[in-house]
Amino acid sequence: MRAHDVIVTKRDGGRLTDEQIDWFISTYAGTDEIADEQAAALIMAIFLNGLEPDELTHWTGAMIDSGDRLDLSAISRPTVDKHSTGGVGDKISLIVVPLLAACGAAVPQLSGRGLGHTGGTLDKMEAIPGWRSEMSLEQMHQQLDTIGGVIAGASASLAPADRKLYALRDVTATVESIPLIASSIMSKKIAEGTRALALDVKVGSGAFMPDVASADELARTMVRLGEAHGVSTSALVTRMDGLLGATAGNALEVAEALDVLTGGGPADVVELSIALAEEMARLAGLDVDVAATLASGAAMDSFAAMVAAQGGDLSAGLPVAAHIRHVTATEPGFVHGINARRVGVAAWLLGAGRARKEDPVSPTAGVVALVRPGDEVEAGQPVLAMHADHESRFERAERELAGSVTIGAGSVEAAPMVIETVP
Amino acid sequence: MRAHDVIVTKRDGGRLTDEQIDWFISTYAGTDEIADEQAAALIMAIFLNGLEPDELTHWTGAMIDSGDRLDLSAISRPTVDKHSTGGVGDKISLIVVPLLAACGAAVPQLSGRGLGHTGGTLDKMEAIPGWRSEMSLEQMHQQLDTIGGVIAGASASLAPADRKLYALRDVTATVESIPLIASSIMSKKIAEGTRALALDVKVGSGAFMPDVASADELARTMVRLGEAHGVSTSALVTRMDGLLGATAGNALEVAEALDVLTGGGPADVVELSIALAEEMARLAGLDVDVAATLASGAAMDSFAAMVAAQGGDLSAGLPVAAHIRHVTATEPGFVHGINARRVGVAAWLLGAGRARKEDPVSPTAGVVALVRPGDEVEAGQPVLAMHADHESRFERAERELAGSVTIGAGSVEAAPMVIETVP
Repeated sequence: MRAHDVIVTKRDGGRLTDEQIDWFISTYAGTDEIADEQAAALIMAIFLNGLEPDELTHWTGAMIDSGDRLDLSAISRPTVDKHSTGGVGDKISLIVVPLLAACGAAVPQLSGRGLGHTGGTLDKMEAIPGWRSEMSLEQMHQQLDTIGGVIAGASASLAPADRKLYALRDVTATVESIPLIASSIMSKKIAEGTRALALDVKVGSGAFMPDVASADELARTMVRLGEAHGVSTSALVTRMDGLLGATAGNALEVAEALDVLTGGGPADVVELSIALAEEMARLAGLDVDVAATLASGAAMDSFAAMVAAQGGDLSAGLPVAAHIRHVTATEPGFVHGINARRVGVAAWLLGAGRARKEDPVSPTAGVVALVRPGDEVEAGQPVLAMHADHESRFERAERELAGSVTIGAGSVEAAPMVIETVP
Repeated sequence: MRAHDVIVTKRDGGRLTDEQIDWFISTYAGTDEIADEQAAALIMAIFLNGLEPDELTHWTGAMIDSGDRLDLSAISRPTVDKHSTGGVGDKISLIVVPLLAACGAAVPQLSGRGLGHTGGTLDKMEAIPGWRSEMSLEQMHQQLDTIGGVIAGASASLAPADRKLYALRDVTATVESIPLIASSIMSKKIAEGTRALALDVKVGSGAFMPDVASADELARTMVRLGEAHGVSTSALVTRMDGLLGATAGNALEVAEALDVLTGGGPADVVELSIALAEEMARLAGLDVDVAATLASGAAMDSFAAMVAAQGGDLSAGLPVAAHIRHVTATEPGFVHGINARRVGVAAWLLGAGRARKEDPVSPTAGVVALVRPGDEVEAGQPVLAMHADHESRFERAERELAGSVTIGAGSVEAAPMVIETVP
C-alpha cells in the first residue's frame, strides 16, 4: 500500500477502505515509512472532505488498535468515566470522580497535563503536596476495586496514534474538525477500558465549540463512536459562556473542588457536577441519589482516600501564592459576565500554565473571581484577585484582565448549565 | 506571521493576502521556519479550495521572487521560448529551438532531466557524444546572441521555491491541481527571462491532462499568468492519444529530431513542430516562413552550431544499443493506436529513464515503433523494436508492451494535432 494512494482517495472525496485506514494509522504511528507531510496532506483532506460515519468508526478503531486497550473486566464495580471538551476553570473531574466512587462505581480517569491557557487535571492534582500521577496497572486495578476512583496519567501505550496525529494537527491548523476531534477523544477513552462514558461538550463564548449546532454534532458523533465500540455513552451539551466557578489555577481549583465536596462551592460548579454524576451513575446502572451522596460527605471521603493512595497529604494544606493583587471594577453596575479566555490567559501568564510541554507550572498561581454574574459592584471595588509567586508576573496578566469582567445596567440571571442530553 | 494562520485562511476558503503569500513562499523556500507538514497542509487546502486568479498571479510572482529572474534584455534577437506539459516521445524542443534560432529568435530553453517514464530534454541531448548541459550565464548570453538557441540545465537559482514545493507535491498527492501546475511551470519559465512563450498543453490518453476542458483551463491559466508577468504568452492545446513520433529513448529521439531537421521524420512530429514554431515566431514578432526555414536546412545548421558550441560532436554519430528485439503483432488488421504510457514505461524498463534522481540513464535504450496508426499489419509482423544495452532488460519491457499496439478492423486517419489555440 502507498501513502500517495490513500491521500488521493480522500482528496477526491472517496471513502477510505478499512485496509487503507488500518495501514495508514498503524504505519504512521509505528514506523517512519509515512512522512509527516503525507499525514498532514491526508488530515487536511479529511478536514475538508470529512469521514463517513462507518469510516470514522473504523478510523477510531484503528487509533485504539495502535496501542493497548485496558481490560478492566476483573474490577468488581461497574466502570464509568467522564470526559469534558474542557474550558477555563473546569475542575469537575476532581469532584465527580470521587463522587461516583462514593456511589459504588469504578472511575478510571486517565488524564493529561495542560498546554496553553487551559489547565490539565494532572497539573491541578499535583498542587496537592506529595500526590503522584504515576501508578502501575496493578495499583490502578486495586485502587479502582477498593476506593473506586483513580486520577492518573494516561500511559503512552494508549492510542499512541492520537499522540502523533494530535501534534501534527496542532501545527497544521487541522484541530477544529468534528470527526478528528471525536476520534481523538474517543480513541483514548475507549482504550482506557471503561464500560460507560459520560461526555461534557461545552458550548459558548468560553468553549471550543462556538455554537449549539456544532456542539450537538460533536456530541452525537462521539456517542455513536462510543456505542459502536461497546461503550455505553451519553453526552451533556453544557453552557460555557464565562469562567466555570470562581477560580483558574492549580491549587486554587483544588480548593474550589474541596469546597464543593464539603457542601459549598459555586452554584454553577455544583449544578454541572451533579448533572454529570447523575448521567454517569445512570450509565453505570447504579440506582443512587447522587446529590445526597455529595451532601453526606462520602464523596469527600473518597477524594481523601484517592489522594492518600497516591501519596498525597491533604492535611498539609494547599500551597498559597506569595503575592496577591486585585483588579477593580472601572464603573458601577451589575456583573454581566467574566471572560473565560482572558482569565485563562491571565492565569497562564501568572504561571499556572505552560507554553511548552517541558515547562514546569506554578501550583499556586492563578485568578480568583471575587464576584459572580448578577452581583452589583461599585467602581473601584475588587472584582478579581491575581495570585503569583513573583510580583513581576502581575503587569502582563493585569493588561490581559482589563475589561474581562463586563459590567452593565440591570442584573442577569444564571441560565441552566445543561442545554441538552444526547441521545 | 504564523504558518498556522496562513493555513487557516486557505482551509476556510479565504483569499490569502499578498503579505501571507510573500511570507509563506519566501520563508518556506529560504528557511526551516515552516515545517514540511505545514506546507503540505496549505498545499492540500489550495488543491481543494483553489486560488483566485489574482491570488495565483501573486503566488506565481512570489515563486519567481524566491530566486533570480534572468535579464536577457541585452540580447540583440527577440527572445522566445516554448514549454510542453510533456509526453512520451516528445522531442519537439530539439527541433523548434534550432528552428526558431534559424528564424532569427533567441531561445533560452532551460530544461530538466526526466524522472519515471517521461524523458527529459537534457537526457536526450546528452546522448550526443561530448554535449554538456552546463554553461555560464556569459556563455549563454553569447550563444543566444550569435547562434540564437540554447538548451541547458536550469540553474538552481531560478524559482527555488518550485523545486521544494514540487518535491512536496509529489509525495503528498497534490500534483494534479491546475493553479499549482500553472504556477510551477510559469514561475520557472518567467524567471528564465524570455519575453515571449508558446505553450504546448497536451490532452488525451497519453497526456497528463485527460480531457480538453481541463487542458483548456490550464492553457488559459498559464497564458493569463504569463501576460500578468510581462511575457507575451499563447498556448496550443494539442492531441496526445499515443506515442508522439516513432521513438521513445534518448539517442533514438535525437535521431528522430535529426530526421525532421533534415526534411524527413514522422508526420505528427513535423506537424506539431511547425505549428509550435509558427506560434513562437508570431509571439517574437518575426515575419518568417517557418516551414521553408525548416525545409532549407537552416534549422539543421543551427542545431549543429548549438551542439558544437556546447562541446557535442554530431559527426561522431549517435550511440546505438547492443541488443535489439522485436515485438510482433498478435493478429492481422489495422494499427489503431500505440499506447504512449506503456511505451514510456517499457523504455524506462529498458534503461532510458531513471527511478531516482541520482540514477544514470542509458543513452541508447528505448522503443521504436515500426508501424504507425493506419498501417495494415499481418500476424507475426514486427511492430515495435526494443533497444537495450543488456538482454536481461527485455523480459519486463516485453510484458509491458504486450497489447500496447492496438489492432482492429478498418483503417484510421490521423486527426489534426492542434485542437485549439489560446487565446
